[in-house]
Amino acid sequence: MKKIPYVKGNDHTVEMAAERRKFVKEVTGADLKHVGSFSIDPSALPGNIESFIGVAQVPIGLAGPLFVDGEHAKGEFYIPLATSEGTLVASYSRGMKLLSEAGGVTCTVIDEKMQRAPMFAFENARYAREFGKWIENNFEEIKAKAEETTKSGKLVEIEQYSVGKLRFLRFDYTTGDAAGQNMVSRATHHACKWILAQKPEGMEHFTLAAQMDTDKKHSQINTLKTRGKRVVAEAVIPNELLKKIMHTTSRALFNQRQYSNVGALLGHSSNNGSHSANGLAAMFIATGQDAANIAESSAAIVHCELRENDDLYISITIPSLIIATYGGGTSLPTQNECLKLLGCEGKGKVYKLAEIMAGVVLAGEMSLGSAIVADEWVSSHEAMGRNR
Amino acid sequence: MKKIPYVKGNDHTVEMAAERRKFVKEVTGADLKHVGSFSIDPSALPGNIESFIGVAQVPIGLAGPLFVDGEHAKGEFYIPLATSEGTLVASYSRGMKLLSEAGGVTCTVIDEKMQRAPMFAFENARYAREFGKWIENNFEEIKAKAEETTKSGKLVEIEQYSVGKLRFLRFDYTTGDAAGQNMVSRATHHACKWILAQKPEGMEHFTLAAQMDTDKKHSQINTLKTRGKRVVAEAVIPNELLKKIMHTTSRALFNQRQYSNVGALLGHSSNNGSHSANGLAAMFIATGQDAANIAESSAAIVHCELRENDDLYISITIPSLIIATYGGGTSLPTQNECLKLLGCEGKGKVYKLAEIMAGVVLAGEMSLGSAIVADEWVSSHEAMGRNR
Amino acid sequence: MKKIPYVKGNDHTVEMAAERRKFVKEVTGADLKHVGSFSIDPSALPGNIESFIGVAQVPIGLAGPLFVDGEHAKGEFYIPLATSEGTLVASYSRGMKLLSEAGGVTCTVIDEKMQRAPMFAFENARYAREFGKWIENNFEEIKAKAEETTKSGKLVEIEQYSVGKLRFLRFDYTTGDAAGQNMVSRATHHACKWILAQKPEGMEHFTLAAQMDTDKKHSQINTLKTRGKRVVAEAVIPNELLKKIMHTTSRALFNQRQYSNVGALLGHSSNNGSHSANGLAAMFIATGQDAANIAESSAAIVHCELRENDDLYISITIPSLIIATYGGGTSLPTQNECLKLLGCEGKGKVYKLAEIMAGVVLAGEMSLGSAIVADEWVSSHEAMGRNR
Amino acid sequence: MKKIPYVKGNDHTVEMAAERRKFVKEVTGADLKHVGSFSIDPSALPGNIESFIGVAQVPIGLAGPLFVDGEHAKGEFYIPLATSEGTLVASYSRGMKLLSEAGGVTCTVIDEKMQRAPMFAFENARYAREFGKWIENNFEEIKAKAEETTKSGKLVEIEQYSVGKLRFLRFDYTTGDAAGQNMVSRATHHACKWILAQKPEGMEHFTLAAQMDTDKKHSQINTLKTRGKRVVAEAVIPNELLKKIMHTTSRALFNQRQYSNVGALLGHSSNNGSHSANGLAAMFIATGQDAANIAESSAAIVHCELRENDDLYISITIPSLIIATYGGGTSLPTQNECLKLLGCEGKGKVYKLAEIMAGVVLAGEMSLGSAIVADEWVSSHEAMGRNR
Repeated sequence: MKKIPYVKGNDHTVEMAAERRKFVKEVTGADLKHVGSFSIDPSALPGNIESFIGVAQVPIGLAGPLFVDGEHAKGEFYIPLATSEGTLVASYSRGMKLLSEAGGVTCTVIDEKMQRAPMFAFENARYAREFGKWIENNFEEIKAKAEETTKSGKLVEIEQYSVGKLRFLRFDYTTGDAAGQNMVSRATHHACKWILAQKPEGMEHFTLAAQMDTDKKHSQINTLKTRGKRVVAEAVIPNELLKKIMHTTSRALFNQRQYSNVGALLGHSSNNGSHSANGLAAMFIATGQDAANIAESSAAIVHCELRENDDLYISITIPSLIIATYGGGTSLPTQNECLKLLGCEGKGKVYKLAEIMAGVVLAGEMSLGSAIVADEWVSSHEAMGRNR
Repeated sequence: MKKIPYVKGNDHTVEMAAERRKFVKEVTGADLKHVGSFSIDPSALPGNIESFIGVAQVPIGLAGPLFVDGEHAKGEFYIPLATSEGTLVASYSRGMKLLSEAGGVTCTVIDEKMQRAPMFAFENARYAREFGKWIENNFEEIKAKAEETTKSGKLVEIEQYSVGKLRFLRFDYTTGDAAGQNMVSRATHHACKWILAQKPEGMEHFTLAAQMDTDKKHSQINTLKTRGKRVVAEAVIPNELLKKIMHTTSRALFNQRQYSNVGALLGHSSNNGSHSANGLAAMFIATGQDAANIAESSAAIVHCELRENDDLYISITIPSLIIATYGGGTSLPTQNECLKLLGCEGKGKVYKLAEIMAGVVLAGEMSLGSAIVADEWVSSHEAMGRNR
Repeated sequence: MKKIPYVKGNDHTVEMAAERRKFVKEVTGADLKHVGSFSIDPSALPGNIESFIGVAQVPIGLAGPLFVDGEHAKGEFYIPLATSEGTLVASYSRGMKLLSEAGGVTCTVIDEKMQRAPMFAFENARYAREFGKWIENNFEEIKAKAEETTKSGKLVEIEQYSVGKLRFLRFDYTTGDAAGQNMVSRATHHACKWILAQKPEGMEHFTLAAQMDTDKKHSQINTLKTRGKRVVAEAVIPNELLKKIMHTTSRALFNQRQYSNVGALLGHSSNNGSHSANGLAAMFIATGQDAANIAESSAAIVHCELRENDDLYISITIPSLIIATYGGGTSLPTQNECLKLLGCEGKGKVYKLAEIMAGVVLAGEMSLGSAIVADEWVSSHEAMGRNR
Repeated sequence: MKKIPYVKGNDHTVEMAAERRKFVKEVTGADLKHVGSFSIDPSALPGNIESFIGVAQVPIGLAGPLFVDGEHAKGEFYIPLATSEGTLVASYSRGMKLLSEAGGVTCTVIDEKMQRAPMFAFENARYAREFGKWIENNFEEIKAKAEETTKSGKLVEIEQYSVGKLRFLRFDYTTGDAAGQNMVSRATHHACKWILAQKPEGMEHFTLAAQMDTDKKHSQINTLKTRGKRVVAEAVIPNELLKKIMHTTSRALFNQRQYSNVGALLGHSSNNGSHSANGLAAMFIATGQDAANIAESSAAIVHCELRENDDLYISITIPSLIIATYGGGTSLPTQNECLKLLGCEGKGKVYKLAEIMAGVVLAGEMSLGSAIVADEWVSSHEAMGRNR
């Protein structure tokens, strides 16, 4: 078994990357010429990657402008979308045009939380219940302990869920401009060490995580209780604009919503909208977010209303948008440039970024949703000859 | 409102990309120097991106080797992981080492399907029911119609689901080495035009999609019925290896599984494992898959058994792995190189890639799962002094 | 530990019941005077109850008439509702009046299935997959085996679901006028014995049930795939009638539907309607159905449409209505009388009963749904002074 | 259309019931002889039923004794089960014997809540968010208002859930010995009138309920957050007892649990156990509970552990047990006698009843679960000849 070349202490260099690509060529025959073509400085990569060999070059297209009426993001934004799915940029741009001409998209962060959910097992359910009360009564002390490990993380609540002798706690934090998964793990671990040191009566077992966070996966509890930012994009769209730009009507879109809700309830989908994952994944890659969080961030709930004047009120709520404007991949060169393009680089910018992303998502919903409805209009009527 | 520069007919050039970056600098002040540093030839990008401005450079680390015992992937594989999450590559490598030393990971594609789910609304439930029977009776003709539009797509089944006057059909296709979403949309649309031309009795409305596919979102129906490849990775791991490499035991991991299953049922998670989205997202970006499909592909079900000799049987089933080895982003230069590195470039390779990905996912489960269990071991016992 | 008196061979007598009530009085002090007041003949109870002591007298109220426009139930029906929840009978009657005046409720059984879901575990996923193919290829022989044990049960499909090395089969039967749970257990068990006798390669374990039926509990798979009867009630209700009888409007009810759908998606409810369990439980008790099946039968999906003339189309789909018109509790004297009242006693009547029940359920939805909306109208406007 | 006879003011009499039965006979031909045979006094029925015609006589069998080690229920209990499903009483008795011989079943109420969930719609998400803060800040005043309408109900929390411009509040109450649905509706309605009188800024609409309670239906939110009593039954069962009484082993049951958990995750069931609805429905009918609440009360989570000495720890958690010991149907004669039999009649007894019910449910799980496993043992081995 051949081992990947690795150098202690000074592993993130152009030379080591080249040596590993050479190794790859020897063992697999693959010539990583383009992978080896990068402008970024490997010495900045510790903390982001191990056994660095080069980069994936993901094409970025520029969409927009999108007029965002947020509390933090205000005005027109051009949106960098990193994707290889053809038409995605064009389709989102079309939606942005619609929203912008309708007066912009109103975006609001309505909640935020990041969590780690340790589980404590006891000899029986009564000990577990007493432990739950003890946690409630000692919240301030636990909070103080947790916050010893972090400057920006604040413990705001400990949710409790119980099954038999098991007690799941969900430590909810605000985490500033970082996504905060590591921050809350460290803080919760530290707080739990203190809890364990109090020797809870009847305790049998402790684990830092047992599927109630829930990290890197969709869950109903996250949709209910928020993970990351809970952000809403909403707009009122004149019927005339829908006709002009989208070749459909508010009524057609509203009727489709009725069918889609039934479909979402029946198939039990994490999202009753069209494809928010598309816009989010493209922005996540462009701006250095963790693309694995698309698992959680792809959940959404669309709600719309048909106004008496045939205008369409439409909103999308993303309950688990997990993003950052510093830390993680946000300081990588191309990603950082894209954040700058959005005016979202560094501290104090995460709400702004959340608002923009929500606006982009709604643009994508309007575009694909309208395409489905309009296409159906064309094709079904063409076939059925109703217009003849 | 300033418009992004765009040239009809010859838009994908180095010059147009530069002009757009200049535009970005003018309107936002952001200097897209690194975004503009790419080795790929823009003229190959039509079909992948619009309004091209450059690339996101996502660092790739090399993990492995992983010994895969698949039906298509056989032997040792080095794995390119595109990520900016530190420790991810190292952690997956640790899991690969474990699986490899345990004799390898057995990977099997057990089902595959790609679908489009049109909905037909009728005057009442009886017409809808009769339509359902008609669809059953005319399957062969519908299949022939659908397959007129595609060489590699084969319609294998039309599932039916009904609510009141609405009839949702799920057209299930095999799609060869392509992910196939567009292929099945086109084929289904074509078949539906034929269906509509037969003027189904009592029909009121048709739409090509209404949330029963379900595309770019997790759903229980996909977990049940498969979307993309349904692939299993499984391994039997000696307890001694777990102790040596993971500093934990089969029994500790098995006990954790009991808690995790309760947590997954309680929180209603799409995945009772740890973090399959991490490995998948990193491979998706490296190999040109559509990262938005992490929404669906992040679902998984872990099942494990503790053998009488204390060996651990562990498996993970990914019910909706949506990947391709040609088409889409797979022909982009860096992504194509990574596919070559894996021996998975081009036609006839998609099962091999699915097997490797499943193996990588199981490696990640073993690594993070063990870390959680071992850490708890250390920290809780340190705190509680049980070993003293 | 005192043992409940029991006589081999001749246990279902008035005397034994009295002796047991005497025993109860001795050990608990409770005088079961009313429990001991029954008109039914205990000698008819073997097969329905063990250690018989008497009866629960559940009050029955008469609701209706309800005009049902079914394929099997046609005309006006008076509905016996066994309940102790005050206002339930009156509320359902109000809904029945509305539906009847609107021209009746159209009820349709659109699917039916009863299942038992055995699970087969194999050495690995490949054996499990091969077994799945073998099952497909041997369907006719398996069907013949299963049907050896029953006259009225017909095996119509074997669904397959797979996780790792586990293969869940769902044997779907039609069961005539019986609910059929025992029938399908016996038939499936018999068929599985034959399957096991073929010694499936690599098989490690078999169990007749492992949560994929799913019996006496709600599940998404039942909502998708039907358990018992899948029955729809639908009606078109003039806005004027809603105003006159319900003191609300079609528009108000339709708007409430938008909110309710969001609520159902958010809380992940088994039913986006109001309270179908109320009417079903009351009819189940009155007509000798198994009240435990309310677990499954309480699931429902409401879909409504606001017509251009402001009429309201409304439907409710019950995907898992588990009922019978013979067998089980249907032959008990009071229950049998209630079935006769409905014209649903004995063989050949189960579709009729399903239609009536669905109609009753829709009546209840209209009544409670309207009450909520009308009350809100009153109270919120009273409070907020919008009408002043 | 013939109308059911009805007398204002004095409708609940033997005579009126007879007159209605005569009416039934005229219009349907059904002779309600047994329905008309009841010992209960109709004059006690206002508040329980309208248009009374008689009773359903549901056979009651006596099971037990079950040794319960609760905080409120202590000692041996004989259990009245009203059912027409043969073997149910015998099967539960077998499970009670097992639990009793194992030293009894430990039962604990770990949480309790009853809720009503009004929804407030606003002009946009920002108003909705501000309203949420206002609710938090005015909790004490809202609580005071709500509690004006009830002596026993206490408002303990207002949960908040948000989607776009919609704000769902969940008013959580403790309700003493009543189930409390009406109590909390009244209290919440009263509190909401006060809230509305404050004229929340930007409010557009209010409704007292929109699917987030969730009443008479299963939901994930209820499983997470409790509705009614959250009660646990747990026991440690020696392997020898399982062999002797159940003809199976702890290991076989534990292995089955692994499969069942996968099945429950895959089918997305409200309950990973066997059939808790059976025991609960039978006790609900016997003791005058609302059988429609089986919809919610049938949810459960089983967790078990295999001890090193091969003893089996097993628990079942019922998150939404909705019961009462006074009010509703509990004062009906036969039902009240059954409550007395259990020593659970009247105020101050609801925890005791919850504990007994949980214990009964666990008995049923052990019995059916063992039967499945043992049967499989017999049949599969008989067929496969592994023991030969």
